[in-house]
Amino acid sequence: MAVVKRGPYAKGTAKREEILSVALEVVAAKGCRKASNREIAERVGLTQAGLMHHFASREELYQEVLRARDIRDHEMFFAPDPTIEGFLAVIAHNAEVPGLVRLYVEFSAEASIPEHPAHAFFLERYAWLRDGLSGVILRAQDAGVIGPAVDVSAAVDLIVAAADGLQLQWLNDHTVDMVARLRRLWDGLVAVSHAA
Amino acid sequence: MAVVKRGPYAKGTAKREEILSVALEVVAAKGCRKASNREIAERVGLTQAGLMHHFASREELYQEVLRARDIRDHEMFFAPDPTIEGFLAVIAHNAEVPGLVRLYVEFSAEASIPEHPAHAFFLERYAWLRDGLSGVILRAQDAGVIGPAVDVSAAVDLIVAAADGLQLQWLNDHTVDMVARLRRLWDGLVAVSHAA
Repeated sequence: MAVVKRGPYAKGTAKREEILSVALEVVAAKGCRKASNREIAERVGLTQAGLMHHFASREELYQEVLRARDIRDHEMFFAPDPTIEGFLAVIAHNAEVPGLVRLYVEFSAEASIPEHPAHAFFLERYAWLRDGLSGVILRAQDAGVIGPAVDVSAAVDLIVAAADGLQLQWLNDHTVDMVARLRRLWDGLVAVSHAA
Repeated sequence: MAVVKRGPYAKGTAKREEILSVALEVVAAKGCRKASNREIAERVGLTQAGLMHHFASREELYQEVLRARDIRDHEMFFAPDPTIEGFLAVIAHNAEVPGLVRLYVEFSAEASIPEHPAHAFFLERYAWLRDGLSGVILRAQDAGVIGPAVDVSAAVDLIVAAADGLQLQWLNDHTVDMVARLRRLWDGLVAVSHAA
């Protein structure tokens, strides 16, 4: 599947990767609000106009950093079939990449206003994540782990909400064990699902 | 307990209240990132320097909007003793004040970076909230609702995380029933707490 890229396209792709990586470093160090296109452009040796040639806006740039992360996470932890252990592995991995957690927490909050250019991206991402986690629950139900009394949609909302909220907590206090907390939530969902 | 305020102090207090209220309207309409001190100042009939006389910075202003909300919520729903129903009532009330939810979600995310001027405010607020919710769980335990097998600290983290994450979801989709989701979480925590 590996494609050997050459010529100007390969150069463009390499530059694009470099920009995504530097954008992440700048956000990790300064936060989303203080991070500037000017600094990102300078650090990759481009003018701001040159940077905008690769990404039309700050919002597109951040969105693409997060999209690249999702693709990697999906390949590493979720393929071929998502499981709760795969999801917890993504969360455990998050604790290794604080810059991405910071970008995700800040940028998803900022983009919650419908007029935001990345609003549609997050809605689409959320639908994708819901879909994956619904599959996790249905497969756990098939396996008899989760009982019949479960509202899949509500359970998914809750798992995503807890994962989002825990990332914010973890940014404030790196001793918060996100995985242990989510495992407890899962145990609670399992317990309630077997109730009469 | 009502104090009749007069003279310049009363004037200052009224202006302060007006600023907090207008700041909230501007954030509700534009989001935290696009809201500007200039617009807030204009709408309350002050120069930006005049606005800064009341609040030293954008960050102090937003922080004080949230602090005023917490004081009101606490009086309305939590005093004298916090209960889970009181907490759920705060969440239900949030759905009536989308501007506050937007400000809270965006500003708490932005402030997660340790260098942020409101970072200490959110840490302090979090400790206060943890304290209230720990009391909720311990009293529920005394009443026999929550069983012995509960890690109070972990349960509190999870409730706050879910409430935070659900507010973000609700901003994106007002049909998300935050209270029903949190009640399910509580039921799960109750179920697991009675496990052998």
